[in-house]
Amino acid sequence: MTHPIIAAIEARNTINLFDPSQSISDEQISELVRLATRAPTAFNLQNWRFIAARTTEAKQRLRKVAWDQAKVEEAAVTFIVCGQMTDERVLADRLAPAVDAGIMPASMVPSWEAGAKMLYAGQVWRQRDEAVRTATFGATTLIYAAHALGLGAAPMIGFDHEAVAHEFDLLPNEIPVMLLAVGHAKPENWPQKPRRPLAQVLDII
Amino acid sequence: MTHPIIAAIEARNTINLFDPSQSISDEQISELVRLATRAPTAFNLQNWRFIAARTTEAKQRLRKVAWDQAKVEEAAVTFIVCGQMTDERVLADRLAPAVDAGIMPASMVPSWEAGAKMLYAGQVWRQRDEAVRTATFGATTLIYAAHALGLGAAPMIGFDHEAVAHEFDLLPNEIPVMLLAVGHAKPENWPQKPRRPLAQVLDII
Repeated sequence: MTHPIIAAIEARNTINLFDPSQSISDEQISELVRLATRAPTAFNLQNWRFIAARTTEAKQRLRKVAWDQAKVEEAAVTFIVCGQMTDERVLADRLAPAVDAGIMPASMVPSWEAGAKMLYAGQVWRQRDEAVRTATFGATTLIYAAHALGLGAAPMIGFDHEAVAHEFDLLPNEIPVMLLAVGHAKPENWPQKPRRPLAQVLDII
Repeated sequence: MTHPIIAAIEARNTINLFDPSQSISDEQISELVRLATRAPTAFNLQNWRFIAARTTEAKQRLRKVAWDQAKVEEAAVTFIVCGQMTDERVLADRLAPAVDAGIMPASMVPSWEAGAKMLYAGQVWRQRDEAVRTATFGATTLIYAAHALGLGAAPMIGFDHEAVAHEFDLLPNEIPVMLLAVGHAKPENWPQKPRRPLAQVLDII
């Protein structure tokens, strides 16, 4: 039997047509984000924030700054998945629960801080890359979690970054890395599109 | 019963200690990348390339430009996951199989090209963000695929970008977005570390 994870990877399709009559609960939204944040992040920095637009009013505001795409409003919830520019000064705080749980020795924290400082301090493009990576790790995990709950998802980049940041009061260190519409799929959606041949995208050395 | 995808998201841990005596086959490497490339990408651009360092010689060369981290060599394979700066001129080629398969109407391709051109043409930071997003969508999916196959994985950012690009002949439009070590986990690895409370990372509006 195909492993359910592999079946999901093969079956997942991006949903453009959502059933606007079906909503999801705040508990389901929380469960999706709880799972999304189990994704890995560099140094366990968890430099992300999820804004879940789920009221009609919030979704309409978001649609206006997202190329007027109907799925923003027709989905049960559309997340603004934010990455935060990395700042190694928060790292000790982010690692404290792992130290308290006896997973990570406290003596190891300074070397992680030194590594993070070496990578990020004063290097804006690395800070931004990490924000994009972190948000995408979380969003991808959220997409598969949604699939497991019987929901469809559409990652979206067609929006006005500056307008989203302004309209939804993003912090100065936050980047709206993608929108992620999640809800009940209509049956008419396209299946997953064909992929490039492996020979074009894989080199084994 | 917990859905196997949710169980995997909750159980997955980053592997630092691999059993160096256990290898994986080229077929398994191909299967992992086949699954990774089922992840979504913007406009289905699939602007990624996976370089699988699986010989001792290749892994040693990579370890030298990756902070001498032992897991690069001890893992059965360490992928250099590359994102490619987006270039909307390849889009028609990437969409042709979906048109041929009858999924996407040929008449829709020009509007996708126009959207991609508006987003990316001449906008270097958007091209780079997309390279990072694409590679991370693929890498995250590869991590869960590896989990399904009983393998562990470690996404890594501790490496010298320029040296990796030079040593492994990356194309001028390619960014080494992360390294991803994959192999058989030793039992001594840390469990998944605790996460930030949901109230810190989720706003429902």
